[in-house]
Amino acid sequence: MDQLNFAAPGFPSTPFLCVDAATMDRNLAAMADRAAMAGLSLRPHAKTHKVPEIAGRQLALGAVGLTVATLGEAEVFADAGCTDLFLAYPLWVTPARAARVGALASRAALRIGLDSADAARELGRAVAGGDVQVVVEIDSGHHRSGCRPEEADAVAQAALDNGLAVAGVFTFPGHGYGPGKRRAAAGQEAAALSAAVASLAAAGIAAGTVSGGSTPTAAEADAGVLNEIRPGVYVFNDAQQVELGTCGWDDVALTAVATVVSSAGRNVILDAGSKVLGADQPAWATGGGRILGIPEARITALSEHHATVAIPERMPLPRRGDILQVVPNHVCAAVNLADELVVVRDGAPAGTWAVAARGLNS
Amino acid sequence: MDQLNFAAPGFPSTPFLCVDAATMDRNLAAMADRAAMAGLSLRPHAKTHKVPEIAGRQLALGAVGLTVATLGEAEVFADAGCTDLFLAYPLWVTPARAARVGALASRAALRIGLDSADAARELGRAVAGGDVQVVVEIDSGHHRSGCRPEEADAVAQAALDNGLAVAGVFTFPGHGYGPGKRRAAAGQEAAALSAAVASLAAAGIAAGTVSGGSTPTAAEADAGVLNEIRPGVYVFNDAQQVELGTCGWDDVALTAVATVVSSAGRNVILDAGSKVLGADQPAWATGGGRILGIPEARITALSEHHATVAIPERMPLPRRGDILQVVPNHVCAAVNLADELVVVRDGAPAGTWAVAARGLNS
Repeated sequence: MDQLNFAAPGFPSTPFLCVDAATMDRNLAAMADRAAMAGLSLRPHAKTHKVPEIAGRQLALGAVGLTVATLGEAEVFADAGCTDLFLAYPLWVTPARAARVGALASRAALRIGLDSADAARELGRAVAGGDVQVVVEIDSGHHRSGCRPEEADAVAQAALDNGLAVAGVFTFPGHGYGPGKRRAAAGQEAAALSAAVASLAAAGIAAGTVSGGSTPTAAEADAGVLNEIRPGVYVFNDAQQVELGTCGWDDVALTAVATVVSSAGRNVILDAGSKVLGADQPAWATGGGRILGIPEARITALSEHHATVAIPERMPLPRRGDILQVVPNHVCAAVNLADELVVVRDGAPAGTWAVAARGLNS
Repeated sequence: MDQLNFAAPGFPSTPFLCVDAATMDRNLAAMADRAAMAGLSLRPHAKTHKVPEIAGRQLALGAVGLTVATLGEAEVFADAGCTDLFLAYPLWVTPARAARVGALASRAALRIGLDSADAARELGRAVAGGDVQVVVEIDSGHHRSGCRPEEADAVAQAALDNGLAVAGVFTFPGHGYGPGKRRAAAGQEAAALSAAVASLAAAGIAAGTVSGGSTPTAAEADAGVLNEIRPGVYVFNDAQQVELGTCGWDDVALTAVATVVSSAGRNVILDAGSKVLGADQPAWATGGGRILGIPEARITALSEHHATVAIPERMPLPRRGDILQVVPNHVCAAVNLADELVVVRDGAPAGTWAVAARGLNS
């Protein structure tokens, strides 16, 4: 990402989130190419960016559809013209949600995640006659939602018994988020999905879609088992991906632009805190984010409106008023705090994108 | 907080943030009474709630004005009619911000924090002739922003030399956020403020306002030194305050209302994750938040849209579709993720409050 004069006219007051469009476009193309070369369908998770303009680019580059986490996100992207949506979440279908599911299914191909036979029965009753496909969620080792692979047949059968089509199986190998863990997680992902496909096959049910993937594991996805990946973070990348080795600094497309407002000793205080960056900080992270161009710096504390940045002895100390770019630990969290993203192209401000699905958690 | 039927008409789909108005009103009155009995002015930090309706109640109960963290927050509360605002932040005054400061100062008594002589000179030049008072920020041990107590005179003198009035001194004893730390932090707060007042007095400068306080230290505030406190979280309280012993469960006025969407063994998965609760989790916390009414439960993991809740063996296991109330670890972060708060009064939904200053970080 180029060093820019963020104090120039056309940029808002700090702190704000800035997207380097060229880097983002390169990230989008690289993942699309990787998926195509591996023979995998790409269904990016739009929860990372929540921006219709970015979804449009993903689809134009060949994505088969979008993944979303909530009905609210699905509605935003359907409004934006996306006609193939996968709600990868074990939805609890209240009557209000059933009506929304029905409305969505009438204007987009809609897939919904499920991880129990009970959920299949409830969804089937709720959207009876609606054109909704289900994808059975498998726990591949992250131990969050998802059934065991050998239970997949029962869940799928319950879906069929209740008038729902079964599109296939999916998993989220979130336990790949740790140093040195992604290869093993990708292996478990493939093993769990393979077992789930076998479970369905034994019951005479075809698993058309076999979907996995996260940004760390996408490069390790086993194309002998999977036929779809759902990475999200790759659009922008973040400090976690840099520290995990999933990407390099040059692949970071989103930063929080922040001003030095105070300093003491070798610490400087930036005006971007957890209300801009998010507070995600896994135990293996070096701090509360990273500073672009000063990889030796460490964010040793985050308050709501302050980042405390330790600058090593040998480095020049930024001064009050200097503007730095902070790479958030978890870009999905940072984006979800912002109403808009400031776009930079060819070294100049190039408008803003509304984070249209921000805060739509239900 | 009463057990309510959150599936009833009038409530939105989960997850959402819910305010128990009676509990909140009790919290507001208790802090107002405590401050009045101690002879302390109360200037609540509005960054916690960001809601004009709540600010109005605080002022009606005798608050001398509001504390805010950003110019954007100040503008929202000035729009709502607040005429006395303290921006407790070491603002970097760009020309754009100078214009906003001037506009604010023309419609409200405006105080701004400062922690260096350079900052005083810059602010003085930027708002020359404007009616802005400065409050010198002191580091009392939190080691974030703030000058050393013995430097307070130089900062104050630079302010005076540059045409600014000096209202006094302030500190934020944020290092009181830890088990067993609040009393010591309150002691350091009083010592640092006392030394800063002495520094000003030796230079012939009166410190009219001597301001400290956070929710954990508010009850320990030394009224022999301080004459103002600025707690914020007390409005709602949160899991951190419960775990620090600052409040009891009955004092929790805000929860995230969430549905059980999946379960495995003794774990249930709720549909409120870090995009609803925030990801704040100090090392001493028991988990990613607490469950109201099930104090033995532990939130062992938070994803963006999932909370993994471990239910002890002897407890009844919540079932899919059951609705639980999650007490966020840090309520300021949770509120800043929501566009509105659902208000409950007399056991029934009583409208919503817009989080009017949400996301206004600059």
